[in-house]
Amino acid sequence: MQPVMNVEELEVFLETEFPQIHVDGRIYRVETVSEGEAVLSVRALERHLRPGGTISGPTMMALVDLAAYAVILAHIGPVALAVTTNLNINFLRKPEPGDLLATCRLLKLGKRLAVTECTLTGRAGGDPVAHATATYSIPPR
Amino acid sequence: MQPVMNVEELEVFLETEFPQIHVDGRIYRVETVSEGEAVLSVRALERHLRPGGTISGPTMMALVDLAAYAVILAHIGPVALAVTTNLNINFLRKPEPGDLLATCRLLKLGKRLAVTECTLTGRAGGDPVAHATATYSIPPR
Amino acid sequence: MQPVMNVEELEVFLETEFPQIHVDGRIYRVETVSEGEAVLSVRALERHLRPGGTISGPTMMALVDLAAYAVILAHIGPVALAVTTNLNINFLRKPEPGDLLATCRLLKLGKRLAVTECTLTGRAGGDPVAHATATYSIPPR
Amino acid sequence: MQPVMNVEELEVFLETEFPQIHVDGRIYRVETVSEGEAVLSVRALERHLRPGGTISGPTMMALVDLAAYAVILAHIGPVALAVTTNLNINFLRKPEPGDLLATCRLLKLGKRLAVTECTLTGRAGGDPVAHATATYSIPPR
Repeated sequence: MQPVMNVEELEVFLETEFPQIHVDGRIYRVETVSEGEAVLSVRALERHLRPGGTISGPTMMALVDLAAYAVILAHIGPVALAVTTNLNINFLRKPEPGDLLATCRLLKLGKRLAVTECTLTGRAGGDPVAHATATYSIPPR
Repeated sequence: MQPVMNVEELEVFLETEFPQIHVDGRIYRVETVSEGEAVLSVRALERHLRPGGTISGPTMMALVDLAAYAVILAHIGPVALAVTTNLNINFLRKPEPGDLLATCRLLKLGKRLAVTECTLTGRAGGDPVAHATATYSIPPR
Repeated sequence: MQPVMNVEELEVFLETEFPQIHVDGRIYRVETVSEGEAVLSVRALERHLRPGGTISGPTMMALVDLAAYAVILAHIGPVALAVTTNLNINFLRKPEPGDLLATCRLLKLGKRLAVTECTLTGRAGGDPVAHATATYSIPPR
Repeated sequence: MQPVMNVEELEVFLETEFPQIHVDGRIYRVETVSEGEAVLSVRALERHLRPGGTISGPTMMALVDLAAYAVILAHIGPVALAVTTNLNINFLRKPEPGDLLATCRLLKLGKRLAVTECTLTGRAGGDPVAHATATYSIPPR
């Protein structure tokens, strides 16, 4: 399961196909791509916070959705039409303010479905703040 | 399972406790509250769209998260500290542009956990575009 | 979404294709089939119980898996190769001993995926004991 | 997160509290217990198979449910009343006949909820056949 796109190619593709994710500036970053894995980050803005300074659940879900998409793309090449079919997330701990990282691994890369598993942590590391699985449907190639 | 907060009380509470959800204007609305149920809507902005004009997955997940919270609050009264522990969503069909509605029902309102089930449709009705379950942890009262 | 198989046809198909489900006797029953819906039941044996006389989680999950399969088959006709891809279940209340019913509805019947939603109750009715969603992959037809 | 029960203590506890799981003989085994992790196995009988010799989904779900319980017990000590609140499973590949292993890790061990993540493989190793998360509610201690 070697990746076929690198960090720069992924960022260009996401920027071209999904310009809306950068409407608040470049808050999402592809950090690394490796065999069966991709790490993405989000820089939380005021709009992503909740009382007490914690990062909102929807911010975490949006990051998972994007990072799962990125790890799949990285291994099948640019396919703009892959769509999420299922996302399940367990919120584990309140994240500290600051960058959030999602490390997504491919559990399965089939002809029709790709299943990923994502762990969310703060940039400083520490215990995971959330864990998710996300499934994408892949269009016929 | 009679509600103890009405539409206006819910909207005031959400606006006070979660001002961030209105950072783009008042795009979220509490439509109705009834026995064991609440309906919320989101007005999709440019930032919520994806290529082809469809509404993004994260927009749907954010609506579910808020609507699940609202139906719980409506039945236990204002508890700012309830937190999502699990959210599972199945994306069924691409939504048309326009308002999206989430109809959330209480499956269980326990002392420690509340479990909700949500169906997402366009305002015009039609087949559901997504279906979700969300669990909240309720602080000791 | 009219069914194309009735109760008797479903029972014969399940018995022929999955004889293993009847290894303890005929404990699973197809109760009803209607538009977009099927109801199946399980008669809990000693092996399905847990301390205090409640029905075990795995018994509920097995019933959901079978009932979701049945409602799909009922609407697409006998397809022995449909396979579960995802199952998510929330356990809500301890079931009383006795028959358990799963009412499964089709949320989506697509070309590649079928998504179902199931509510589990005791035969006497009352509050649901569990709620689940299950997705099946459908082989090319 | 050091375990407080070892393999033998877990097996004795499960056998005493859940004699029903051994109604077909001792098919479940606690293989290993380590920091934050437990591995359990099931020996599939005829009743657990499906056409083509593959192991059934319910067999995998029952193993996950038991292994998630075991890893929690191993770290909090014997608590017969912990109950599953949510289980989400993705079926990835058809398992070969033979023993199935579930490796469950603690994602969170809170006062009220414990969240686990489980990977299922054949005893010979190879790609995972299923991946699951399971949440248990822990009674007040």
